[in-house]
Amino acid sequence: MAMETVAIVGVGLIGGSFGLALRKTGFAGEIIGVSSPAAIAAGLKRSAISSAASLDLALIRADLVYLAQPVDRILETIPLMAAGLRQGTLVTDAGSTKGAIVACAEAHLRAGCFLGGHPIAGKEQRGPDAADADLFRNRLYVLTPRGPDTPQIGDFRTILSAMGAHVMEMSPEEHDHTLAYTSHLPQLLSTALAATLAHDGDIRLSQVFGSGLLDMTRLALSSPELWTSILRTNKREVEAAIDAVVQVLIGLKANLGESETANTFEQATAFAASIRKRAPAKP
Amino acid sequence: MAMETVAIVGVGLIGGSFGLALRKTGFAGEIIGVSSPAAIAAGLKRSAISSAASLDLALIRADLVYLAQPVDRILETIPLMAAGLRQGTLVTDAGSTKGAIVACAEAHLRAGCFLGGHPIAGKEQRGPDAADADLFRNRLYVLTPRGPDTPQIGDFRTILSAMGAHVMEMSPEEHDHTLAYTSHLPQLLSTALAATLAHDGDIRLSQVFGSGLLDMTRLALSSPELWTSILRTNKREVEAAIDAVVQVLIGLKANLGESETANTFEQATAFAASIRKRAPAKP
Repeated sequence: MAMETVAIVGVGLIGGSFGLALRKTGFAGEIIGVSSPAAIAAGLKRSAISSAASLDLALIRADLVYLAQPVDRILETIPLMAAGLRQGTLVTDAGSTKGAIVACAEAHLRAGCFLGGHPIAGKEQRGPDAADADLFRNRLYVLTPRGPDTPQIGDFRTILSAMGAHVMEMSPEEHDHTLAYTSHLPQLLSTALAATLAHDGDIRLSQVFGSGLLDMTRLALSSPELWTSILRTNKREVEAAIDAVVQVLIGLKANLGESETANTFEQATAFAASIRKRAPAKP
Repeated sequence: MAMETVAIVGVGLIGGSFGLALRKTGFAGEIIGVSSPAAIAAGLKRSAISSAASLDLALIRADLVYLAQPVDRILETIPLMAAGLRQGTLVTDAGSTKGAIVACAEAHLRAGCFLGGHPIAGKEQRGPDAADADLFRNRLYVLTPRGPDTPQIGDFRTILSAMGAHVMEMSPEEHDHTLAYTSHLPQLLSTALAATLAHDGDIRLSQVFGSGLLDMTRLALSSPELWTSILRTNKREVEAAIDAVVQVLIGLKANLGESETANTFEQATAFAASIRKRAPAKP
């Protein structure tokens, strides 16, 4: 492929995994890490990156810039790249919301040089030590192109396919609507459940429970820092999703143990079963 | 022990597992199944029971009657036992709510012959084919005694300990308050989440998701029939639990991406981490 040098900005779980996965596809060029000293050290040790540089120096050489920071940091990084970005370099990101990031790129970068992306992949552990060359394999990878493919975008698609990712295209708006319901709402329900039990103050609530409570509070372990900017950049969609689930909860409350409850349970069971038929195998 | 004959009413996952676990403790007496023909056949095949009888005939011989039906069925069975129950027979149950069942037993059965119980154990599969001699091992088993222990209650405690269960005592009211938050609310949140996504109608909502949505909709696969009577017999506590989580959700909605969100996330993370320190190892 035409890409000889790749810069990964933010060498954490996603950035480190992208570096390892890129090597696994046979990529022999340089992978420059732009990150904190600790992340650089860990990324070099794992061979997820092959060198380190500042953002400005990395931009001079990179054919592909992969922004793998949290959403708020990506929004800070994009304007800093405006001056130094070479003609022909593709910038793409792995941020969890797309509307604000794509708008930011369109405001600050030349048309055609940015491609929004979101790998629907992750694990509980964070950081480059948890990086995994197969993190994207058999996982969805959403792209939000705004124009026709350039040769660079074609090369990036080829890389993602070689990593085993299933690429799916949609607009930034469609992405943010969808993820509000399938990712941000589940996160908020898990967090709200754990916070509700914490507030109650009855010690038995942290003693008498089965595996269901553990399942339902796993997402609540997620880092607040990551989520603050996800929620801030998808406010309207997430507000609508909260309204929708609160309506369903109020409907359940009004009919506890009546046949209406059974109807809601049946719709829910059917949906939960249907996504298990489509779901890629869990790692 | 003094118990020579045990009757299991409802030979499903819990009843069948109780029979297998009882055998594993070395119990050599008869285990009479009282259940549907299909459940009896499966229970005999698994050796979870050693014979079958009608409820009336089982009562003539049983020293211990283990009610392992859904809550609504237990409430139907208890009054039917009033006439035939021998002096000295202990009746206990495995129902998911305790207030209504204990009140029903106190209204229909002699004082001291009933002991409410709830094994906090289960699995996704149902029925006697899924029965497991170790289902109760290292799991909580709540008992709700209303008076001093009789010799029969002492024998039953010994059986539960021999099965590896961790016995915990509380009042029926404390049980129902606690489980409203740690079991019934998680179930309703999972069901409400899946129903909300089903209602939206956007096909992407069943296509673009990660493992978090699978975790959060696992409970939604539960059977509506079981849950209707659980919710009906714990209405007030569950209503309060729904109100509490809706308040938290509305608070999150009002401050999406602000520092108040981060506070709620931190409380939730701390609670979710704390129950993982206490939680018995998952099967």
